[in-house]
Amino acid sequence: MESLLVIKIGGNIIDEESKLDSFLKEFASIEGKKILVHGGGKLATRLAEQMGVEQQLVDGRRITDPATLQIVTMVYAGTINKNIVARLQALGCNALGLTGADGNAVQAHKRAHATIDYGYVGEVDTIDTELLGSLLDQGLTLVFAPITHDRKGQLLNTNADTIAQEIAKGLSKKFETSLVYSFEKSGVLMDAEDDSSVIGRIDPVYYQELKEKQVIFAGMIPKLDNAFAALQSGVGKVIIGKAEHLRQLIEGQSGTTIVHE
Amino acid sequence: MESLLVIKIGGNIIDEESKLDSFLKEFASIEGKKILVHGGGKLATRLAEQMGVEQQLVDGRRITDPATLQIVTMVYAGTINKNIVARLQALGCNALGLTGADGNAVQAHKRAHATIDYGYVGEVDTIDTELLGSLLDQGLTLVFAPITHDRKGQLLNTNADTIAQEIAKGLSKKFETSLVYSFEKSGVLMDAEDDSSVIGRIDPVYYQELKEKQVIFAGMIPKLDNAFAALQSGVGKVIIGKAEHLRQLIEGQSGTTIVHE
Repeated sequence: MESLLVIKIGGNIIDEESKLDSFLKEFASIEGKKILVHGGGKLATRLAEQMGVEQQLVDGRRITDPATLQIVTMVYAGTINKNIVARLQALGCNALGLTGADGNAVQAHKRAHATIDYGYVGEVDTIDTELLGSLLDQGLTLVFAPITHDRKGQLLNTNADTIAQEIAKGLSKKFETSLVYSFEKSGVLMDAEDDSSVIGRIDPVYYQELKEKQVIFAGMIPKLDNAFAALQSGVGKVIIGKAEHLRQLIEGQSGTTIVHE
Repeated sequence: MESLLVIKIGGNIIDEESKLDSFLKEFASIEGKKILVHGGGKLATRLAEQMGVEQQLVDGRRITDPATLQIVTMVYAGTINKNIVARLQALGCNALGLTGADGNAVQAHKRAHATIDYGYVGEVDTIDTELLGSLLDQGLTLVFAPITHDRKGQLLNTNADTIAQEIAKGLSKKFETSLVYSFEKSGVLMDAEDDSSVIGRIDPVYYQELKEKQVIFAGMIPKLDNAFAALQSGVGKVIIGKAEHLRQLIEGQSGTTIVHE
């Protein structure tokens, strides 16, 4: 099977021009089939302030009311997505930007919650792997904004980590897929305060051990649980590390590689 | 040759919810290969006001300074494009939204002018007809926002009429292409004040006659000159009329059809 990279970059990379620039250069230079999923960053918050749209937070989570949905659609699918696409094109990488609504690539439904209405937030249902496979086969590099739809005409603000994971899972039937989560830290750390204490490799047995010893801190557990779920659905490996070290991450020389066994 | 419809809708349709709705319903119901190119509408102007971005006008034309480019990218490629795509998806039409940067579909250069700097405004250079043809062959309906790029990383605000025309010209080598310009009037009028005085059919000989008799008013001449240029580049026919009458326009029962002979 041909290999495929699905790479998620977080908001902290998007917010820093120089970090984004060096990331995109490395990303463009990597051969083979690849998909980039980007998060949102602070631009949406800044725009909301500028427009006088108040952000509703419940339990520290942003509620996507209609005004906020309009803002994230503009910023994620407009500004961020199209600027990344244009910059990749300038770097010789034939990028094509998508939301989940485009070609019904990622269909979702509005999140239901017993007590909190998160507003227009999507939970992913299906990935059109036929479409994505055929776009990749045409030599296109896909760039996803974290916006999906419910196929009833409603756009939905959707977690970029989840989109990346579901795309990787879906496409692992067609490609030998690696999923890369890049974030501000160097990987999964032995000591949360020490960025040099990266754990290079985690398999399920070692994961149990780390959890029992309480080495892995609370915030990391959902990320790792998701990584193992992705591996169980056919993804070859999941890599967690710094976006600036993209090539080393992929080559296993940086970050944490999570494997099935 | 298989037939293809390239339809441009103007800002006045986008600004009126009910008009857009009935247009999209008709558009979705039309069989066969089709491309929609949408303009901008008043949303960008409203957002600029809300954000306190002053619009620079020179000779009545908006200058696309960096702040304006950011706004039109958000509104055209984000809000308008993705909402149209999501609504078409809900109507069973497998739409995929694009700017010229996506897949390098429409490459342009920044407009050069002897005395006025229009800012980040694009003049179209090339259309990737291979890519567009292959996306259409996959059963996708393409929806273009009036944003292009220069392949050096710069997005460019670009006239939607021109994008529609260049796409129709480029794809007329592969498809029997009809180009539809929908706007607020019912077609080319004998009497500019009388919306019922539509001229049903114009060929080059009749066009000369109408110009000599000064029946065709000044604002219409560039549109018609462009229409004849498109016909000379292989487009089968150009139709001008009201977006709400889309099906009748295509069937030649409404609007003005411009033909080569």
